[in-house]
Amino acid sequence: MSYLNHITSPTLLLDEKICRQNLKKMADKAHKNRMKLVPHFKTAQSHTVGEWAKEYGIKEITVSSIKMAEYFCGHGWENIHIAFPFNPLETQKLNKLAKNQSLSVQLINEEVTEKLTDELEHPVGFFIEIDAGYGRTGVEVTDFGLIEAILRKAKKGKNLYFKGFYLHPGHTYYIENKQKIYDESIAALSMLKNKYLTEYPNLVTRIGDTPGCSVIDDFGDVDEMGPGNFVFYDMMQVNLGSCKTEDVAVALAVPVVDIKKDRKEILVHGGGVHLAKDVLTEPDGTKNFGEVVYLKEAGWEIPIQRSFLKSISQEHGIIKASDELLSKVKVGDLLGILPIHSCMTADCMEEYLSLAGKKIDHAEAG
Amino acid sequence: MSYLNHITSPTLLLDEKICRQNLKKMADKAHKNRMKLVPHFKTAQSHTVGEWAKEYGIKEITVSSIKMAEYFCGHGWENIHIAFPFNPLETQKLNKLAKNQSLSVQLINEEVTEKLTDELEHPVGFFIEIDAGYGRTGVEVTDFGLIEAILRKAKKGKNLYFKGFYLHPGHTYYIENKQKIYDESIAALSMLKNKYLTEYPNLVTRIGDTPGCSVIDDFGDVDEMGPGNFVFYDMMQVNLGSCKTEDVAVALAVPVVDIKKDRKEILVHGGGVHLAKDVLTEPDGTKNFGEVVYLKEAGWEIPIQRSFLKSISQEHGIIKASDELLSKVKVGDLLGILPIHSCMTADCMEEYLSLAGKKIDHAEAG
Repeated sequence: MSYLNHITSPTLLLDEKICRQNLKKMADKAHKNRMKLVPHFKTAQSHTVGEWAKEYGIKEITVSSIKMAEYFCGHGWENIHIAFPFNPLETQKLNKLAKNQSLSVQLINEEVTEKLTDELEHPVGFFIEIDAGYGRTGVEVTDFGLIEAILRKAKKGKNLYFKGFYLHPGHTYYIENKQKIYDESIAALSMLKNKYLTEYPNLVTRIGDTPGCSVIDDFGDVDEMGPGNFVFYDMMQVNLGSCKTEDVAVALAVPVVDIKKDRKEILVHGGGVHLAKDVLTEPDGTKNFGEVVYLKEAGWEIPIQRSFLKSISQEHGIIKASDELLSKVKVGDLLGILPIHSCMTADCMEEYLSLAGKKIDHAEAG
Repeated sequence: MSYLNHITSPTLLLDEKICRQNLKKMADKAHKNRMKLVPHFKTAQSHTVGEWAKEYGIKEITVSSIKMAEYFCGHGWENIHIAFPFNPLETQKLNKLAKNQSLSVQLINEEVTEKLTDELEHPVGFFIEIDAGYGRTGVEVTDFGLIEAILRKAKKGKNLYFKGFYLHPGHTYYIENKQKIYDESIAALSMLKNKYLTEYPNLVTRIGDTPGCSVIDDFGDVDEMGPGNFVFYDMMQVNLGSCKTEDVAVALAVPVVDIKKDRKEILVHGGGVHLAKDVLTEPDGTKNFGEVVYLKEAGWEIPIQRSFLKSISQEHGIIKASDELLSKVKVGDLLGILPIHSCMTADCMEEYLSLAGKKIDHAEAG
């Protein structure tokens, strides 16, 4: 029986083959550059995908909250890095988890460093997050005063140990010239490494973000890469040039509930609570909330004539349909939607269905 | 112990007092207009809020999927209406639920009507959804051919019975002149009622949408109202003039993880996976993903100087902070964020915390 027979309502499909290809390709790239790949699991949030990743030599992962770290604790990871400026209200939870799992956190200010120095009960590593121009979070790359204040405070405690510098050049999502961003980011990390390597001979540098890691070939002397989205990719990444439409590993299966041939519109059950509301803009200004694919027994097929979700509300989606699609679609059919932002879609859906018809885990919301 | 002591990570607070005021006010308005209030529970998705609603005379509710109907089945509702063009793939689930719960569905085409006529095993009511200009879904108000084709098909089965006409004038979210939209929508429903009342003497008409139901005073001869968002309201509704900021009943509590005084920015743990990504635009073009309130033991306080979330990513939120806020905030504090779109935020969070520190239920995602 096909996986299609299991579906009566919006369901997130995961194509294991495509996902493994994405994992392998990035692992090969890391290997070629003598880098360690530490993927960010905020995208998949799944033990099953974690087991696949282990087959490509991945031994450590990154997450974005202590709750997500908790999900992955005790599943054989050599280290779990929480890549979010540490939330000091969760120090006791960190103590609980660090008892049995090697963990690292991210620090960007003195207040939280001091709290961890005082209150940590087990060894926990830390990266200093560096802002090399993205402007979301991190210590400015030339703010040696703050870097050294953090290092000094950390030295006062016995459980907090410095691992290195972490840099997320998220402006690769907005700026065309990714090579320039990477040149600057790599130079910043290299400068910091050279400055502090004598004092911390084991320090490493890590860079992460899918658009950059997908297209850049030379990572200089950066030691580790930490992209997340690449395990699934999505239409935003296709749009950014990180991958091809064929590399997107997840599709939301949606039931067709009405067809308006005169308007060339198809109404599906699939909206913001399933896909999230990330959006691209078509060349003619139309919004695009997801790309239509045709669901087949062996997986999905990318149509020759494009159709896409032109609007969504909480549960409704309206497809702007091609003539090809209109000529064959019927009420009660299922269509696939390649998401604009797969991390958000997976977080909304909290579960995957494999093409073999098996449920695949995802951490809970919140 | 204050509810604040329970919070270490992003948590959705629900102020019962404000929520009850919103329920009472809309129930009073319905009563004054001799209308039945059938609130749309896609917003709260909660049994607890349902029990509060019952205290204001509410006996029936609306939901947007069969999954959500399932959540509410067996909780004493006289009828649960599924206000989404019925998804024919869920006919067997409908049969299962309709065995023990009075349900109604929404129909807009012949295909699904025929399927239900043939396959329903228990009585189920239906509304025909009318599109009076919104353009999302529904039968065009003058398409009597389709209306009558649906009614004819339904008559052939013994379990599908006609309840009336449903109209969601969702363009009140985009168009300033809500009175004009309501004048047209009420006229459309009135025309349909008069046309079909002889044949269906019990037919009712229902109109729903929070912006309209909040500001319109005269609903003509419409029998029922079905707004949803009003139970919580949110900043989009404040912006639309449906309510005041004081009427917003939910706030996301977020931990402060970093402060950049020079940039007047505060980094919080609270992003798209918590709030969803609905957004307003400030007069100067800045984006606004949520309004800051100060959390107090008795609830939250609306600041004199405004601060708001100017950008969010998956887990990060950056507040554009007022001088007032900057003068007193510390790393490790909690702030409140009034959401832009409370239905989506509640759906992301899947649980509430009351101001008494008690967990309040919400249906699961998907």
